[in-house]
Amino acid sequence: MEKNLQVKREFSKLVNGMKPSAIDAILKAIGDPEMISFGGGLPNPESFPVEDVKKIFNDLISTNGKKMLQYGSTEGLNTLALTLAKRMKDKMGVDCGPSQIIQTTGSQEALYILGKILANPGDYVISESPTYLGAITAFRASGVRMVGVEMDLHGMKIDSLRSTLKKFPNPKFMYVLPNFQNPTGISMSLERRKELLEVASENCITILEDDPYGSLRFSGTQLPPLKALDRNNNVIYLGTFSKVLAPGFRLGYTVAPEDIVEKMKMVKQALDLASSTISEFIADAYISGGYLDRWIPRVIEMYRGKRDVMLGALEEYLPQGVDFTRPDGGMFIWVTKKGANTDRMLEDAIRNKVLYVVGSEFYPENDNHESMRLNFTYCTDEKIIEGVKRLGKVFGKS
Amino acid sequence: MEKNLQVKREFSKLVNGMKPSAIDAILKAIGDPEMISFGGGLPNPESFPVEDVKKIFNDLISTNGKKMLQYGSTEGLNTLALTLAKRMKDKMGVDCGPSQIIQTTGSQEALYILGKILANPGDYVISESPTYLGAITAFRASGVRMVGVEMDLHGMKIDSLRSTLKKFPNPKFMYVLPNFQNPTGISMSLERRKELLEVASENCITILEDDPYGSLRFSGTQLPPLKALDRNNNVIYLGTFSKVLAPGFRLGYTVAPEDIVEKMKMVKQALDLASSTISEFIADAYISGGYLDRWIPRVIEMYRGKRDVMLGALEEYLPQGVDFTRPDGGMFIWVTKKGANTDRMLEDAIRNKVLYVVGSEFYPENDNHESMRLNFTYCTDEKIIEGVKRLGKVFGKS
Repeated sequence: MEKNLQVKREFSKLVNGMKPSAIDAILKAIGDPEMISFGGGLPNPESFPVEDVKKIFNDLISTNGKKMLQYGSTEGLNTLALTLAKRMKDKMGVDCGPSQIIQTTGSQEALYILGKILANPGDYVISESPTYLGAITAFRASGVRMVGVEMDLHGMKIDSLRSTLKKFPNPKFMYVLPNFQNPTGISMSLERRKELLEVASENCITILEDDPYGSLRFSGTQLPPLKALDRNNNVIYLGTFSKVLAPGFRLGYTVAPEDIVEKMKMVKQALDLASSTISEFIADAYISGGYLDRWIPRVIEMYRGKRDVMLGALEEYLPQGVDFTRPDGGMFIWVTKKGANTDRMLEDAIRNKVLYVVGSEFYPENDNHESMRLNFTYCTDEKIIEGVKRLGKVFGKS
Repeated sequence: MEKNLQVKREFSKLVNGMKPSAIDAILKAIGDPEMISFGGGLPNPESFPVEDVKKIFNDLISTNGKKMLQYGSTEGLNTLALTLAKRMKDKMGVDCGPSQIIQTTGSQEALYILGKILANPGDYVISESPTYLGAITAFRASGVRMVGVEMDLHGMKIDSLRSTLKKFPNPKFMYVLPNFQNPTGISMSLERRKELLEVASENCITILEDDPYGSLRFSGTQLPPLKALDRNNNVIYLGTFSKVLAPGFRLGYTVAPEDIVEKMKMVKQALDLASSTISEFIADAYISGGYLDRWIPRVIEMYRGKRDVMLGALEEYLPQGVDFTRPDGGMFIWVTKKGANTDRMLEDAIRNKVLYVVGSEFYPENDNHESMRLNFTYCTDEKIIEGVKRLGKVFGKS
């Protein structure tokens, strides 16, 4: 007879130390049909090349159906690696071969894996402050500690970086988003990029360059990625298809020195064996068939319009004393009011049916409450205006 | 001026302790067109419902295209969770609701996540010996130690389990594959299943039941999963679409108590945010549209034929003294010769253009070299016969 003894469950220290993401709570509030959400980091569904994907899928399923449905290799589809290597060279000025590329289940997986292979639990890494929430989550899940370095409108401040390195002289890597940073929308100037590489070289620090939005520039001049400026093989570059094809594919890629790719492959094998072969085949055809280059200008045009609508509304409806960034691309605007506490304001915002992500979530130390992140790509223009009006009211009372 | 200082790279202790999988080396040898491979765990490409997938995709992209390409939620598509809950009830006798289900990037991801949330580095877990290589990799990547328990033709030996529990009295969980186990093809008898649950209850141990092949039974009577026999909420059930739809989707699912699902969700968010929405939509339509139930009998028929071809060839071409299992389902046969060393034989096998996976890889302690795992689902019937002939020669010289 089986006894009726329920297991008293113990969880690991790691998971007991984790808390559900703020984004998750926001996703729940989105359920309300009257809610206007600037919260998620979602691309606009109108930016998905549905007809192209349909055509590509149907071509491929007839010619490559069985390969497309089979297990792929852990590092990803070789033809896609070749296609990406060529594109990195042509569009970014980055010289690399297919063996320096690994495809991952979104670039989130690459962040997680890199946190695991480059640092031991308890080690620290340096990031911009604020920085991408998903990177904080990924690195923390491996017990890595993060130290944030102050930014200005040109990116991470180099003098602050130097003094941080005095206090924390041996970080395992630096994590930066040079283009239209998440959450601030700020881009690192060319000079700052060069200075950052110099400091990294002097201190022998690997740089992790996350570039999800790089090809979504609406204004200003395109700047070379750190990876293109790097002569010391110090930079790991992360790209993704989530913002230029569709997030549903869960496909990202990392361009890195071969020794790093080899280690990433071992960990990826433990994590999920391989990414979706279907996604890899479609992404390859999407680039090499010229679809991507034909599509990106349409996404840029749509998002530039939405950015302008939001900036215009922010000008008009936010009270005096509220500042915001003016991004040249990407998906986010960062709104700051000196002395405000956006964590406390959120309840009132939800009552007024408008959502944002509280700024404190993006600080590794959770110690700054004056800002909020607004996404401008997801909502219709009408909702952007109405949502900013509502925000204006909330700020008025703050 | 950027100085020319190349980073001297240090990797984490974890990754320095990992070695490339043996499977990976085998995948490389497959490149030779004359090679007959029983090595991989690949489904037969003819088992993929290519036309059904094409039809489903085209229906969905027209009606749900934008949702299908967008980010999904971390726990997976709600309609698929409902569909799976219904199927677990109807086909398996398992009572569960959608909140007890989380969808993952293959069931490999679930193995990795469970290793992370249920055990601390250095803790040990119990498995059958031999056991699934991918589980060993997944658990080890979290620093978990594995203790194997001897099997016979009815599954894990309960007396051996009891004595193992005396030596290792506090394992964090037990990992078992009751149906057509990978690598042995052995199924756990009903009596053994009940005894295992009893021991688990007495010792308050959570069971992780991995069931990738459960619906691929060619002969014998279907047995209830541990999850259906469990009255104490001690069992976590892992299923996958890789063997009944296609591995290219990278989609698995876990049925577990809600507190475990919640913790899994937090870790999955750090790992890859969400699985492929496209895969989730297609899998849902594949089950709820009745495609799966119409398709499975065809796969069973194909694989039963291949199993019989391989068993016949093994009878005919293997020399006296070589034993093998006779699985009622799944994908693998386990071949053993007392005193042999299949690690050493592999070189000769490769010269003879036939591949297998060395048995030692499947032992947590790597301490048994007498066996090899043969996959019977991937090759054509002609190649199965020819490959076994070649193996016969290799055994003849061993």
